[in-house]
Amino acid sequence: MINYPIKRKVQETVLKTTSNRGMDLEDAINQTNQYYIDNDIAYIYKKPIPIVVVKVDYEKRSTAKISEAYYKTPSTTDYNGIYLGRYIDFEAKETNSKTSFPLKNIHEHQVLHLKNIQKHGGIGFIIVHFFKLDRTFLLDASKVVEFYNRKDIGRKSITLEEFIEFGHDVKEGYVKRLDYLAIVKREYF
Amino acid sequence: MINYPIKRKVQETVLKTTSNRGMDLEDAINQTNQYYIDNDIAYIYKKPIPIVVVKVDYEKRSTAKISEAYYKTPSTTDYNGIYLGRYIDFEAKETNSKTSFPLKNIHEHQVLHLKNIQKHGGIGFIIVHFFKLDRTFLLDASKVVEFYNRKDIGRKSITLEEFIEFGHDVKEGYVKRLDYLAIVKREYF
Repeated sequence: MINYPIKRKVQETVLKTTSNRGMDLEDAINQTNQYYIDNDIAYIYKKPIPIVVVKVDYEKRSTAKISEAYYKTPSTTDYNGIYLGRYIDFEAKETNSKTSFPLKNIHEHQVLHLKNIQKHGGIGFIIVHFFKLDRTFLLDASKVVEFYNRKDIGRKSITLEEFIEFGHDVKEGYVKRLDYLAIVKREYF
Repeated sequence: MINYPIKRKVQETVLKTTSNRGMDLEDAINQTNQYYIDNDIAYIYKKPIPIVVVKVDYEKRSTAKISEAYYKTPSTTDYNGIYLGRYIDFEAKETNSKTSFPLKNIHEHQVLHLKNIQKHGGIGFIIVHFFKLDRTFLLDASKVVEFYNRKDIGRKSITLEEFIEFGHDVKEGYVKRLDYLAIVKREYF
């Protein structure tokens, strides 16, 4: 059980009050994925948020109302799908910071998940949006695992410089809001 | 909003009272997937159940309690993952019937989802367990789409004979409870 929805709210508030040019990462990715689907480019979709249901009220058979439930720590990533026959899997995150992405924003199970995807021949990565800088990066799962593993012995974040050096800039566009598959095609095929 | 959890409960009760040899399909698949993961054969996992959250109570920051939510009609399938570099996606269903599988157990969006998976080079299918017969079949997505499309003009189910003719028997085992990837390997590679 985690405080996922509160964090999310805080981020959105900051985004909307500090920056008019700010992009909502989830919206941008969802719109891009819809563009990919509509144009038969790829089929990538968002997974449901994991929730543990404790109590369900059955007033009548057709309307089951969940009256007690909690957010679960996610064990997989937000997005997955298929592109040119390859398995695609990624997590998308925003950060307030201008200098680094805190590793506490990613859960250990999600890192393990990305590692498993790569082990079995899939393409895994994270997309991180520094919204105060208006910059977005794609970082390969192998680098995510490497940086995550130093968490207990040293730095607890991935620096902006590391994103610049090891990641790939994802440019914001108009029709394809965030064309991350252009990078996937260039880097993984 | 659907009556998903009630159906599930009813099914489980029937399963447990009418048949001691009866297999719980979800358990069998989850155990099999764990076997695949533990032995580095494949990485296939269950997606969260889609829930729409209406009301969240924040008593304190660390415990967000969802106090009103509803089950959503699923737009994708239950399981997906990766096997020998290929995208795998399927829905698993049980039926009480001894003669056919009613198509109302599958939603239109799930059929469209399977169609999209195939279009982009993935492997999609359904696994259907006739528990009164103790038989389980794997049926390719193309056949699911074909049978689903006749729903409005004719038969509203897939018959047992059709599963026998166009599907593949999945045998129940001990260590690998339901080794459906043996069929996937034989039929799709």
